Amino acid sequence: MLDAEGRARSLEGLTADIDGAFLAADGIARVRDALDTLPVLPEQDLRRGAPVARPGKVVCIGLNYRAHAAESGAEPPAEPVVFMKAADTVVGPDDDVRIPRNSVKTDYEVELAVVIGREARYLDSPADAAAHIAGYAISNDVSEREFQLERGGQWDKGKSCETFNPLGPWLVPADGLTVPELRLRSWVNGEPRQDELAGDMIFDVPHLVWYLSQFMVLRPGDVVNTGTPAGVAMGLPGQPYLRAGDVMELEIDGLGRQRQRLV
Amino acid sequence: MLDAEGRARSLEGLTADIDGAFLAADGIARVRDALDTLPVLPEQDLRRGAPVARPGKVVCIGLNYRAHAAESGAEPPAEPVVFMKAADTVVGPDDDVRIPRNSVKTDYEVELAVVIGREARYLDSPADAAAHIAGYAISNDVSEREFQLERGGQWDKGKSCETFNPLGPWLVPADGLTVPELRLRSWVNGEPRQDELAGDMIFDVPHLVWYLSQFMVLRPGDVVNTGTPAGVAMGLPGQPYLRAGDVMELEIDGLGRQRQRLV
Repeated sequence: MLDAEGRARSLEGLTADIDGAFLAADGIARVRDALDTLPVLPEQDLRRGAPVARPGKVVCIGLNYRAHAAESGAEPPAEPVVFMKAADTVVGPDDDVRIPRNSVKTDYEVELAVVIGREARYLDSPADAAAHIAGYAISNDVSEREFQLERGGQWDKGKSCETFNPLGPWLVPADGLTVPELRLRSWVNGEPRQDELAGDMIFDVPHLVWYLSQFMVLRPGDVVNTGTPAGVAMGLPGQPYLRAGDVMELEIDGLGRQRQRLV
Repeated sequence: MLDAEGRARSLEGLTADIDGAFLAADGIARVRDALDTLPVLPEQDLRRGAPVARPGKVVCIGLNYRAHAAESGAEPPAEPVVFMKAADTVVGPDDDVRIPRNSVKTDYEVELAVVIGREARYLDSPADAAAHIAGYAISNDVSEREFQLERGGQWDKGKSCETFNPLGPWLVPADGLTVPELRLRSWVNGEPRQDELAGDMIFDVPHLVWYLSQFMVLRPGDVVNTGTPAGVAMGLPGQPYLRAGDVMELEIDGLGRQRQRLV
């Protein structure tokens, strides 16, 4: 974890990893209680992994920003559009992203990821959502648009390719954030692509967690990708899809910054 | 495991559970080698769990039998239709299935489930599929048709409700089966509903495994539900959807029989 001074501290002794079981057992509170006793790690150039180990599932919301729905040629949905991403697509925030074989339409999507901290099943109202959220992270919902939209059937075909969900760098506890004020941004090769506030979501985070809990059980460690703002390659003039060697950068206020090279 | 005489033998000492790691480490061969030394369990009335513990993902194929595509009002697909089911929907073959709150269109789907035994990534051809399959099981791809088809967006919304994937009772090693000859059948309250040969699949198992491996990595312990034959409630006169108290039974030659009560 990062302490208030920005130093990395080891969770060794507290937990082997940050996963659903750790979050369900009030792991974040235990880290806070133990903070002063956690050993400070020497500064070093380590790979940053995903801040949640092995999510049980990754649930995604589609078309949740008006301008992105418009650039996708779709009406704003009357209720949340739900699809799934294979959970084994989750990689570290700075890991290489692999363009699938025969892909010509690989695309980026900066998203606010909700990490579930407590089992959610048939919540009574959106007001009950907060108690089930452990925290937030940046998610890149990488998508192959030809596989997703032109190969028959459902979107999932273009959402579950290997390395298609960089997550992190940080899992930031929910209580420190004012979600609607968070600004989501992305760049490709340094050129700005997406820039919008989480407050522009059509269905906000409490609504989404409540809604999903009517259709499935959300469990500790599960990740909900809450949709992407306008500015994806599919929606831009000339559709500048990603190519090997390109660099994606993604940022959300207070959640840090990701950087992936396409390979 | 069941031995040739139909006696249940314990895998204690060999493995704590049958999961992806066990299958990847040639677990089935190790069980066969150790068979004579495995303790015979006394006959008792135990709950039967799913024969694969915690699949990493459950990938589903839609509209893979012509008559079912027709009863669904769809053309036979030009290439496989792919969607996902949350892996935490997997339950034992005889466990109760929960009708979701506010559901009026819960439906059954008997399917041949393929259990992956070895990582599959960009297979060269369908002929390479067999080496990546550990075995087969019965899967009930329970579906809520209103959630799936009438609530906006993608099918996944009606596929991931709690308990929506009874699996088992047995994981049968691939080498003992001639897949196209397997007969899939289902009943509701004793009344026959589905009855078709796996050989009627539009895309056969080797094709499906090869095809999926072009879009995602299949890992040991992953489950592929290969589509359902005609005869689901949605396609029958009067659409007799499931109600609390109903009993589903599913059978595939050589793979055993499931029985679930709707609650």
